[in-house]
Amino acid sequence: MSEIRIIRSLHEMISHAEELQKNGIRIGLVPTMGYLHEGHLSLVRLLDGHCDLKAASIFVNPIQFGPNEDLAKYPRNEVRDLELLEKEGCELVFAPSPEEMYPEDYQTYIEVELMSKTLCGRFRPDHFRGVATIVNRLFNLTRCSVAAFGLKDFQQAQVIKKMKRDLHLPVKLLFGETVREDDGLAMSSRNAYLDEEQRNLAGYIPKSLEWVSREANVAEQDSDCLRAGMEDILNTQPGIKIQYIEFVDPKTLDPVQIIDRKVQVLLAVYIGKTRLIDNIEIGPGSKMKPFKELTV
Amino acid sequence: MSEIRIIRSLHEMISHAEELQKNGIRIGLVPTMGYLHEGHLSLVRLLDGHCDLKAASIFVNPIQFGPNEDLAKYPRNEVRDLELLEKEGCELVFAPSPEEMYPEDYQTYIEVELMSKTLCGRFRPDHFRGVATIVNRLFNLTRCSVAAFGLKDFQQAQVIKKMKRDLHLPVKLLFGETVREDDGLAMSSRNAYLDEEQRNLAGYIPKSLEWVSREANVAEQDSDCLRAGMEDILNTQPGIKIQYIEFVDPKTLDPVQIIDRKVQVLLAVYIGKTRLIDNIEIGPGSKMKPFKELTV
Repeated sequence: MSEIRIIRSLHEMISHAEELQKNGIRIGLVPTMGYLHEGHLSLVRLLDGHCDLKAASIFVNPIQFGPNEDLAKYPRNEVRDLELLEKEGCELVFAPSPEEMYPEDYQTYIEVELMSKTLCGRFRPDHFRGVATIVNRLFNLTRCSVAAFGLKDFQQAQVIKKMKRDLHLPVKLLFGETVREDDGLAMSSRNAYLDEEQRNLAGYIPKSLEWVSREANVAEQDSDCLRAGMEDILNTQPGIKIQYIEFVDPKTLDPVQIIDRKVQVLLAVYIGKTRLIDNIEIGPGSKMKPFKELTV
Repeated sequence: MSEIRIIRSLHEMISHAEELQKNGIRIGLVPTMGYLHEGHLSLVRLLDGHCDLKAASIFVNPIQFGPNEDLAKYPRNEVRDLELLEKEGCELVFAPSPEEMYPEDYQTYIEVELMSKTLCGRFRPDHFRGVATIVNRLFNLTRCSVAAFGLKDFQQAQVIKKMKRDLHLPVKLLFGETVREDDGLAMSSRNAYLDEEQRNLAGYIPKSLEWVSREANVAEQDSDCLRAGMEDILNTQPGIKIQYIEFVDPKTLDPVQIIDRKVQVLLAVYIGKTRLIDNIEIGPGSKMKPFKELTV
């Protein structure tokens, strides 16, 4: 297996990408913030057959964090990340410093306006502007032909899809299903913040999603009733604080009242200081993929 | 001479551009709002030697006009534009409709923040956001390797340069000197709004610029004194209303007090309802290119 190449400078990334492109080598990219888990690695595998060289970026993007969020304590372990990526056949890792990415006179931002203001955007006002900007730049820096994102960050996936369409980005997008722990909890680097008790509580998130998925597949339902049912499940645990539970159109992210078609349920909860998000597709035509070992 | 190809659909533009790119044909682009003059045509010539196929776009971009600006009456003459472009060896013209470019659910915008707020940006708050967004999209739609812009729109040129640097756009930028009429007036599609009397008044704009250029090359000067001198020249004509006269660093567009290096002087004036802009480089090291037949 060839040694993985690590690039830290913008200049080197651009000239290497140009060289690869000139030689007809199609680059596939998995943009990450590091502290990798099986969800990220499944995205690296998702690139198979879509490109000639698999690359990942590791960059904790400061501009997508709010002033009181967890930028400083976001978990990092680059040595382990590189080992995991190499095992998956990743040949290139772009891991720049924040100073390299955001020099003092940096001032260009991309905003997908409507979609960035709902759901998580109500509580994290500049978050998706930060995401759209960094993703656009990573596409340009790596000249990737294809890029893979996880559906755990459902709103992010839709924002990136919309940016691609609106700006005509020459990048094919792939989306990977959420990878879950045995009790159904969606994998997330932020799960590392949870102590044992909190980790057990977190299992109620997938329980509430599995419940709403079953319930909505029975008959046409009103989203307010379904939300109340989910709240009942989550509120049995005083350690869980619901931030939002929303029922939306999967493409536009506009709210949906009656579940008479495929609808995406998204939620954000706090367990202690840790904010966790998850989502599921429900309603007629949706494929319920049962989480492992779930018992409500 | 081959017939010029006109493309109006986004879909056709993208697939044609991909085809050209696949065949190794480097596209050069001059983005325009039509109603072409010698300034635009000089930009088409500027592409010579930098690309394999010369293209222009004609699109009056609604999102760069404010609510009380001249979008509806902006002059148009596509038949003549196409003739002029064909004569210059332009092989491709992209001329989409506003509905094609901005479908109802369009929502992605690019902003070069600091630079868009000064100078013209003080009076046209969303103008440069509209410019950055459309230019970025035209680059992606045409997959151009090189693009040419005029320095008459000096702030626009700097905003585009900064967007390219910040977002790492894979496009080479060329900038063409302002082309002027015999009395020094910068060519602009908006000159067509002027009646004969107003057209004569407009000649005082280049007079004021030539004056400040000569004056600043004599000795270190304070920009406030130079501004006052320009105001004296322009205010002799009651038909001219000054919107701003600013002395700035050519790269950052930050204000400059003492002219001890190359400084850009930018101005905007109203003559009747017509807003005209112009600019000149002054100070040590600047090359004064005398306007033709000017006598102050």
